[in-house]
Order: sequence, then C-alpha cells, then structure tokens
Amino acid sequence: MDHKILQTTRELIDEVGYPALTVDQVATRAGVGKAAIYRRYTSKAEMAFAATMYEQQLPPFAGTGSLHGDLLALVRTFHVRMATPAARQLAPALISELAGNPGLDTRFQDTFLAAEQAAFAEIIEQAVARGELAGTVDPAMAHLLLLGSLASALYILNLPVDDAMVTDLAAAATAGITALADRHHNDPERAAEPR
Amino acid sequence: MDHKILQTTRELIDEVGYPALTVDQVATRAGVGKAAIYRRYTSKAEMAFAATMYEQQLPPFAGTGSLHGDLLALVRTFHVRMATPAARQLAPALISELAGNPGLDTRFQDTFLAAEQAAFAEIIEQAVARGELAGTVDPAMAHLLLLGSLASALYILNLPVDDAMVTDLAAAATAGITALADRHHNDPERAAEPR
Repeated sequence: MDHKILQTTRELIDEVGYPALTVDQVATRAGVGKAAIYRRYTSKAEMAFAATMYEQQLPPFAGTGSLHGDLLALVRTFHVRMATPAARQLAPALISELAGNPGLDTRFQDTFLAAEQAAFAEIIEQAVARGELAGTVDPAMAHLLLLGSLASALYILNLPVDDAMVTDLAAAATAGITALADRHHNDPERAAEPR
Repeated sequence: MDHKILQTTRELIDEVGYPALTVDQVATRAGVGKAAIYRRYTSKAEMAFAATMYEQQLPPFAGTGSLHGDLLALVRTFHVRMATPAARQLAPALISELAGNPGLDTRFQDTFLAAEQAAFAEIIEQAVARGELAGTVDPAMAHLLLLGSLASALYILNLPVDDAMVTDLAAAATAGITALADRHHNDPERAAEPR
C-alpha cells in the first residue's frame, strides 16, 4: 500500500502540479482510505516529499580517489534530484511546514538528513585516511557547506543553477572543508588567528 | 504612513507571533485602511518581511583589513538579525510565498538581495586590491557560500547555530572564495583539474 500511495502521488504531481494536489485525489485514485494515508504521513507536504525525495535511495558510494572528486560527484547527483520541477515546487512548501511541525521536522532530521550526512561522513573518513585532510570535520558542517548552499540557491534565492555553478560549489566546499580540518586539527597558530 | 504600518506590524509580531498576525489587525491598530496596506505589500508575508528585515539597513562598511575579518564581521551581523524569533518564524513562510509569487520574488531580488550582494562585492574588491585574492569572484556566489549556508542552517535544516558555527562558516567561505579566485584567474592547470 505504501508503494501504491507514493506511486499515485508522483503521477498526480506530474499531472496537476504540487499546489493543486490533494490527499483526497491520491486516496481515490490509489483506492485507499484517507485515514490510511494520514496514518503514514501527517500532511500533503510530507506525503509528496516521501514520494519524490525520501524514496530515492542514495546511489552506492563509489569513491573517486579525491575529496574534490567525491564532493563533485555527490553534488551533481543531488543537483539532478533537487532541481526537478516537482522538487522545486515542493521544497518551499515543505520548508514552511517543517518550521511549524516539530514531529515532521524530527522525522526529516532522523531519516532524510541523517542519510545525507552519513554520505559526507564516509567521504570525509576516506579523505582523512588518504591524508588529504588533517583530521575529521563535522559531517553536518560539510553537508551544510555543499548542499545547504545548493538548497539556498534553488529554494530560497531562486537562482539559476547550472553545472558550472555546481562545479564551483564543489571546489569551494573542498577548500572550505580542508580549511576547517586545518583549523581544528593542525596549525594552532592559524586556528587562533585565521587569515 | 509607511513607518506607522511597519511599526505596528513589529509590535503585533512581538505580541501575537507571526502565524496569528493578520493584515486586518495591523490596519485597525495603525488606523489605516487595508487597501493602503495592500497598495504597498502584496501579502502579510511581504509586510512582515518589510517590517522585520528590509528596514534594517546594513551597517556602514568598516573594513577590517582582511578578507576573513570582513566576512566574519558580516556574517556575525547577519546571524544576529536572521536568528531573531521573528525572523525564524517569518522566513519559512516568506520562502514558500516567494516560490509562488514572481512579483514578490523580483522585488526581493532587486532590493534586499541586491543590497546584500553589494556588500560582498565591496569586500571582494578590497581583497583583490590588497592582493589577497587572485581576481574577482562573483559576489552572488560569495553571498551564497556564506549567507546561503547560514540561511539553510537556520530556515531549512533548523540546526542550532552558535558563534563557533558562524566562525567556521566565515573560515570556510574565506577558503572557498580564495579557491574560486584561483580557479578562475590563476593557475590554469588547477582550474582544468582541480584537486
């Protein structure tokens, strides 16, 4: 039933767009009761988010051999899924709902966000093991530097985002993460008085 | 009348919170017609944004003598205003409204965002003049790296943000902007095959 609900939600977003989507439509077409939907999702926004974003698993991690290469591959994957018309319609509504719905925010943090941050933890661990980073960096901060700025560009600032910009974001995040590793692990002088 | 509307809006946000605020309440207490408010602002969200954020001018730019110092001073100023309870209530609603209201988005881009990006343009120009940067960097990208990530942390990811995190954001943005200047102006080898 989960699959049927999510599949129907995706079809209806494609057909009518997120703003016009209703839980009633999904219940009718999927042949399930509204109560069954609301047992799973607190709102239309969460249902749509589950249908378009939660469900897409991260691709298995295939290291490229460099911090910059890994971050560039990751941000390109996320850019594709974050910039779809459905995601661009949905994200601002979800942002508004997360702010007013602590239960939804907790689920968002514990599932979606935790999975994204785990991908950064793995990339950082490998960069430390290769000696590319002076020490570990908080994966939540690395996530914020790369995907937080991308989310701002797409969903808050409504900037056009092309591959050149995604490439610049990866280069800047690589330099930023490297600088934080230096600040926190190396070079106490620079940590006290960074340039 | 502008001043009266905005002052009343701020008072009511403090008293009842943003979600419960209505344009009717503001009109009644300020002693103006609703039509006068809607000639100025398309919605409650825009009125509240004008009252709490547009109105606060950027402090005059006082250079610290280094790119990192300038970015740290700037992000601290913005953190204070972006993290107020009123701003945290309002921003997610405004984000949702900007996505569905192209006219409002254009005003947001041309006033608020343009003023923020101009501050980055000045900081970058001075860093280039001092020889700290190999060449200029798109101020919109510099803005995104520093304030875009901060906005994501506060308004999308709902992370706790303390001064240590703000300091890390400034250090990472400094390194990121420096790397982009190198990529675009210097060192064609590194630009073609960044590490």
